[in-house]
Amino acid sequence: MTRYQRLATLLTQRIEQGLYQSGERLPSVRSLSQEHGVSISTVQQAYHLLEEKRLIVPLPRSGYFVKPRMAAAPIPAMTRPVQRPVEITRWNSVLELLRSRTDPEILQLGGSLPDLTRSTLKPLWKSVNRIGQKQDIATLGYDSLNGLPLLREQIARLMIDSGCQLSAQDIIVTHGCTQALSIAIRAVCNPGDIVAIESPVFHCIMQILCGYGIKVIEIPTDFSNGISLEALELALEQWPVKAVLTVPNCNNPLGFVMPEHRKRALMTLAQRYDIAIIEDDVYGDLTYDYPRPITLKSLDYEGRVLTCSSFSKTLAPGLRIGWVVPGRYLDRALHMKYTSTGAISIHFQQAVAEFIQQGYYMPHVRRMRSLYQRNLEELVNLVRRVFPDTICHSRPQGGFVLWVELPEAFDGVRLNHRLVDKKIRIHEGELFSASGKYRHCLRLSYAQPLTPETEAAIITLGNVIVGELASNPVAG
Amino acid sequence: MTRYQRLATLLTQRIEQGLYQSGERLPSVRSLSQEHGVSISTVQQAYHLLEEKRLIVPLPRSGYFVKPRMAAAPIPAMTRPVQRPVEITRWNSVLELLRSRTDPEILQLGGSLPDLTRSTLKPLWKSVNRIGQKQDIATLGYDSLNGLPLLREQIARLMIDSGCQLSAQDIIVTHGCTQALSIAIRAVCNPGDIVAIESPVFHCIMQILCGYGIKVIEIPTDFSNGISLEALELALEQWPVKAVLTVPNCNNPLGFVMPEHRKRALMTLAQRYDIAIIEDDVYGDLTYDYPRPITLKSLDYEGRVLTCSSFSKTLAPGLRIGWVVPGRYLDRALHMKYTSTGAISIHFQQAVAEFIQQGYYMPHVRRMRSLYQRNLEELVNLVRRVFPDTICHSRPQGGFVLWVELPEAFDGVRLNHRLVDKKIRIHEGELFSASGKYRHCLRLSYAQPLTPETEAAIITLGNVIVGELASNPVAG
Repeated sequence: MTRYQRLATLLTQRIEQGLYQSGERLPSVRSLSQEHGVSISTVQQAYHLLEEKRLIVPLPRSGYFVKPRMAAAPIPAMTRPVQRPVEITRWNSVLELLRSRTDPEILQLGGSLPDLTRSTLKPLWKSVNRIGQKQDIATLGYDSLNGLPLLREQIARLMIDSGCQLSAQDIIVTHGCTQALSIAIRAVCNPGDIVAIESPVFHCIMQILCGYGIKVIEIPTDFSNGISLEALELALEQWPVKAVLTVPNCNNPLGFVMPEHRKRALMTLAQRYDIAIIEDDVYGDLTYDYPRPITLKSLDYEGRVLTCSSFSKTLAPGLRIGWVVPGRYLDRALHMKYTSTGAISIHFQQAVAEFIQQGYYMPHVRRMRSLYQRNLEELVNLVRRVFPDTICHSRPQGGFVLWVELPEAFDGVRLNHRLVDKKIRIHEGELFSASGKYRHCLRLSYAQPLTPETEAAIITLGNVIVGELASNPVAG
Repeated sequence: MTRYQRLATLLTQRIEQGLYQSGERLPSVRSLSQEHGVSISTVQQAYHLLEEKRLIVPLPRSGYFVKPRMAAAPIPAMTRPVQRPVEITRWNSVLELLRSRTDPEILQLGGSLPDLTRSTLKPLWKSVNRIGQKQDIATLGYDSLNGLPLLREQIARLMIDSGCQLSAQDIIVTHGCTQALSIAIRAVCNPGDIVAIESPVFHCIMQILCGYGIKVIEIPTDFSNGISLEALELALEQWPVKAVLTVPNCNNPLGFVMPEHRKRALMTLAQRYDIAIIEDDVYGDLTYDYPRPITLKSLDYEGRVLTCSSFSKTLAPGLRIGWVVPGRYLDRALHMKYTSTGAISIHFQQAVAEFIQQGYYMPHVRRMRSLYQRNLEELVNLVRRVFPDTICHSRPQGGFVLWVELPEAFDGVRLNHRLVDKKIRIHEGELFSASGKYRHCLRLSYAQPLTPETEAAIITLGNVIVGELASNPVAG
């Protein structure tokens, strides 16, 4: 670190600690130079750096001021999707995104790969190695279709925290949460059926529905309360909806945790209209509040809820281990697993089961929760500094994705095109709707702490957005 | 080994080497006792053992004779399934079979787990460990949807032997051959479509078709030439068949390799009726003849063939690594993979890629081919000795499953029930048909060399079958 960078870091700390307050005039270049025993030009370089980072603003002939702290950006209003069943398309956009993901030169600001670098994961890799070294022929053959009994027992234990009393027999191990969702959807629906979903919804969920020829009806969704039960009821009245698919805990992409009374109300609605509920709880263990929120499954006495989850966000996606608790659809779910992949690999199932059994899972998840919460704060501070003042953003209560709404006329697809030569990519909002909504939105990830590289990329992103708005006042 | 067992082994070798010929009288008990310096009762026990194993027969007052060698059992006639589209059911029978598979007390005589004990596999386990020890974060994240480039390159190299000129871009790595087939079927068909299949056909293939709501028309199949092209053409004339699904190389369960001129004729037929061909080549590399037979894919200039395979039979099923070469259906196949499991685990992909790249694959497969061929000979000798003379059986040209036809009125399901308390299970023929055919057939596996335990089980099986036929002469 050079001299001016050290000084900039020191000043940043002082600003963040409130030593220099929002809007306050900073010491003159001369006095800082004397205080720290550095040259005038070093102080100037440090101030330039802070200016680039939007921490301070220069006022001509008056010196530098701490950038006035903005009022909290507003939470976006409830979404307003098209409320009739629509076919899902947009596979080509998703494929383009997937392809860009394997280009090591492109910095993905929207991906949802968890932080894999933490030492609390080490016992897991040790288990993986120990199992490999044993060269046990049993781990190389075919597993039982339901999945490794030891792992299913451990998953049942973990799910006690979400209010569920399950046994290993209730659980089917799957190849990630994707297969869990795919199995759940096929166990409940036939091609041509209609499923109600939150809007926006994670694009992968939509593509799974699309793959099985299922139509969706997108339901307005609130950034604090989740899916609008009023709008859902209207849809259930009007259309032959087969199931509702929801991400009630640490929703992706909106980040909310559906309040418990709303969860109960949703269950009542499902009973009244006799529909199934497919629940995606993949981020549930990453809720910042302790204890973690309950699942809909915990309120289900009729077996109508199919809860899907995986270790892809809490441990590592490369394990490809998820599970589904399919309730009364157990037999059909088993059949669907058999016909899509057959049994899955034993090696990683065994490793994860040992990791949980030996008590490493909860401390790891606790650690990750607080890391992600800290990353969120960092990202929001940066976004508020470098994005236009007119944005709104979500208030994630867990997980590691942030939803940002720009002014209505903004276009996220065009934004990605503008970012191509800067080797940066965001997740454009349009991917999260079946009816072309959310063009003006984007999803950012904060799974990794900000690095100089990602910080610079988000500053660039902010500059491009500000530039777009300036050159196209309609978009403002 | 006791004294009489040693003597029995010696006599067995003499019979097998032709020292004592078929039908020849064996030395008297007294002379053997003198020759080997053992007691009369030891010789008697040894002869009893050989009698139990059906190698020799006693003739009252004349002594023991080498059991006359039977003429080769006939090959079964061409199958005659119901030739109209039918819905597939029988999931419950398959599920029962799968459940029995995880019961360690039941000896499965029909399963298709390859021999995993050979030293030629060791470099693969070494790769698995090396990759685990590196704890490389890249292997724990999300893979590209198509699969690891290095593995796809190696698969393309292997497929040259089956006559295919492919590049890595033509290949999608899958979670075993099951997912490859599932993806291929979904890429080509919609629910309600009709697919033509060989009859009998591996029950898993039928269940995959069932899972996607596809009807099948079962085509008569010859034990040497494969699917009847004449019957297939009739079906194509009569019904709107979308695709034909075939296992042309080392067919499961019939073991044939479809002759090349029939493969060419099948391609011509597919062109004339503009249907897709889904080809399962999972046993292709285990053909006993060298060089291995060509795939239909190698004859395909229009991209209408989707070839599916895996390393489950050649290396180990627990790897769960297969692939599909979907031809013109590539985009749709990618979508189907995304919606069923997303990307798959990198760890084992990397290990298999290294195993092939370092030149270990071909020697291993060569070794396994000759082992399986030797096992086949052993099993057929035993079956001909202990089963009724009236059976027919397949003539496998590769792989490790044998198809046995008992007299028409025989019932394999009842046989399995009779075997429950003996802790033995065979694959009943009925599982291999959508229209209730093949009740009198069974599939046996010879992936493992005979052990005293499996030999005894097959003798028991033979005794139960002989008993059934004796007690129920209609079945004879």
